[in-house]
Amino acid sequence: MSATATAISPLAPAAFPDMAAVGGLRLGTAAAGIRYSGRPDVMLAELAPGTAVAGVFTQSLCTAAPVDWCRHALAVGAGRGRAIIVNSGNANAFTGAAGYRAAEHTAASVAAVLGAPVHEVLVASTGVIGENLPVDRIDAALPELVAGLSAPDRQVWKAAAGAIGTTDTFPKGASAPVAGSSAHVAGIAKGSGMIAPDMATMLAFVFTDLATDARTAQECLAASVEQSFNRITVDSDTSTSDTVLLAATGASQHRADQHTAAFQDALDEVMLDLAHQIVRDGEGASKFVAVTVTGAADDDAARAIARAVADSPLVKTALAASDANWGRIVAAVGKAGQRADRDRLSIWIGDEQCAGHGVPHPGYSEERATEHLLRDEIKLRIDVGVGHGKGTIWTCDLTHGYIDINAGYRT
Amino acid sequence: MSATATAISPLAPAAFPDMAAVGGLRLGTAAAGIRYSGRPDVMLAELAPGTAVAGVFTQSLCTAAPVDWCRHALAVGAGRGRAIIVNSGNANAFTGAAGYRAAEHTAASVAAVLGAPVHEVLVASTGVIGENLPVDRIDAALPELVAGLSAPDRQVWKAAAGAIGTTDTFPKGASAPVAGSSAHVAGIAKGSGMIAPDMATMLAFVFTDLATDARTAQECLAASVEQSFNRITVDSDTSTSDTVLLAATGASQHRADQHTAAFQDALDEVMLDLAHQIVRDGEGASKFVAVTVTGAADDDAARAIARAVADSPLVKTALAASDANWGRIVAAVGKAGQRADRDRLSIWIGDEQCAGHGVPHPGYSEERATEHLLRDEIKLRIDVGVGHGKGTIWTCDLTHGYIDINAGYRT
Repeated sequence: MSATATAISPLAPAAFPDMAAVGGLRLGTAAAGIRYSGRPDVMLAELAPGTAVAGVFTQSLCTAAPVDWCRHALAVGAGRGRAIIVNSGNANAFTGAAGYRAAEHTAASVAAVLGAPVHEVLVASTGVIGENLPVDRIDAALPELVAGLSAPDRQVWKAAAGAIGTTDTFPKGASAPVAGSSAHVAGIAKGSGMIAPDMATMLAFVFTDLATDARTAQECLAASVEQSFNRITVDSDTSTSDTVLLAATGASQHRADQHTAAFQDALDEVMLDLAHQIVRDGEGASKFVAVTVTGAADDDAARAIARAVADSPLVKTALAASDANWGRIVAAVGKAGQRADRDRLSIWIGDEQCAGHGVPHPGYSEERATEHLLRDEIKLRIDVGVGHGKGTIWTCDLTHGYIDINAGYRT
Repeated sequence: MSATATAISPLAPAAFPDMAAVGGLRLGTAAAGIRYSGRPDVMLAELAPGTAVAGVFTQSLCTAAPVDWCRHALAVGAGRGRAIIVNSGNANAFTGAAGYRAAEHTAASVAAVLGAPVHEVLVASTGVIGENLPVDRIDAALPELVAGLSAPDRQVWKAAAGAIGTTDTFPKGASAPVAGSSAHVAGIAKGSGMIAPDMATMLAFVFTDLATDARTAQECLAASVEQSFNRITVDSDTSTSDTVLLAATGASQHRADQHTAAFQDALDEVMLDLAHQIVRDGEGASKFVAVTVTGAADDDAARAIARAVADSPLVKTALAASDANWGRIVAAVGKAGQRADRDRLSIWIGDEQCAGHGVPHPGYSEERATEHLLRDEIKLRIDVGVGHGKGTIWTCDLTHGYIDINAGYRT
């Protein structure tokens, strides 16, 4: 499809990274022809027996069927997982009872081939909304998918990341060692809008060969999502299908509870890297932007204010134009609904202070601010002068490219 | 300035309307050269002694100085008003203590010329943020402004509406008789984004020659704002300066409390008309869109869901492209944070039902839906299937024009 042939984002990393071969994990891909032709569109992750799986899902009230299935399966299966199957091209969202049966059917097909309980197979789908998932095509691709399973090297990881992508312009992967052990954390993600065109969804699948129980995995994952995927925004839209799964195979023989801090660090590093890559692939993005708020009532308030700035179309269009229009930042802070002292408000673009204590900063140089804004990585800082809360939200600018992709896609 | 020379919005009314000559009111304009040259940029409304004034202001926590002044003056003056002075070109926002003194100074200058108490002069400013208001230029224009005061006919109203505009592409006015009396309600407004570029602000000034006390005026105005300006959105951004003032001169000798329903009706009609005109002048707008939600838990929930749809960049870009991409509406409903039953959700584009009871509607014709979307007035309806709450939000689409205006303005 033409929309998937979009040029690679100017903010993309130079290359797909080197990735660890996480023990207890095999990956495979196949071209099932669900919607795309001529490219892999199904990814299977086979997990060693005893793998613990944790999941964090969209807060949307109109969840897609695979999200409902995963929540059910994780509850019934007590967080054990033997496989994750993911398709692109069809989100299996807004498909009613038939959609749930399709998700369950896919899980059952994979379970039968791998000899696993059905509740230990997790399912994710991303693509068009409101069309029935052609489960027969996934069934037909299963033999090839299973035959091709292999321990993941860089190319296998890259193929897996490619198979789950929709309007993504580059495959997203990240990997980190768990300090003091031979274990690793590695994962892949897709997404190029909080919800890409009809191609809904942000998905991430992260794996480790540490051993852990499901409850610890869930706690670590939830904490990490809070520091990563919950801190990015492309266009303030939320998908019906957002899914992040963490699978801990235990193949390294190291236990997470003996490496708690190191594991959380590695997990956070991988998750933040993947989250940043999603922003870097934001639809039409030409700038990667970090909005940091300090001096807020608490950290939640700081994040809410940073998000209001990061979601403001007027701020985002000014950034696209490298326009040091900090009045729009004032307006965005004002609408955030959080405590801020207008008369102590200070704003920096890069290192250049634009405003201080509620008035334009005496030494402010618009030229120096513009110089910073002409880069493709931008930092904004706002001190709201009421407390010690702080937080950062990452976003991208709003350009003609966003309109092109989203207004032009189906026409 | 070039941005003000933008072509008239394709959604503009055919002509500035006929407007009633509200008794007890005189209007004047002058070119003070605050930022623009060669066009009137100050408007003075002189109100008969005894006029009651009510005000509704931005919910922003970073209010502009004129908003602070108006709140103070209305409290001290107990809702009596002798004049309203408005300038365009400079918002007197983020100007610290000097900004408040500038607003107070302007009120005092007008009060001195008209022989009125300073607290009976209301002030509003719209334009760039973070620059000091050149009060001397307003002072210098005052004699001309006062000499030119006249009872408002259509041309006078139109000139007043023009003087308060910034990036507006057409002057906005509306007028309605109060049924069963000889009184009228008439008003003007400006705004073409919830906050236009650096040109902040939505302003509206509405007048009636009914007699009423300030408290009744405030209640009627608050109720009317709730049904009009609080139901529109262009880009989800909120200005530091949003101001709506209602002045009741009493010149008709009719009393509002004897025409309560008729007065509220006329006020609502004028306010909704002005609010719609602001949406019709939305930056880059090519479609006027009504989003109606039914079946919500209550009316507030309905409006919140309608607002989530109306603010969704993905919905707005699809509308710009006349793309019947109703999956984006599902996603927007899901993120609204209000009760909705995914499996009872129904969606209509115009009269064409796209989805019903959580699945695509069997008889749905994308062709007929697209036909409706090709018009410049679009209706979307969403039934969320949980209760009897309903509500409508009016908005416009998101086009390349929005990016042009907002990313190109200062560069």
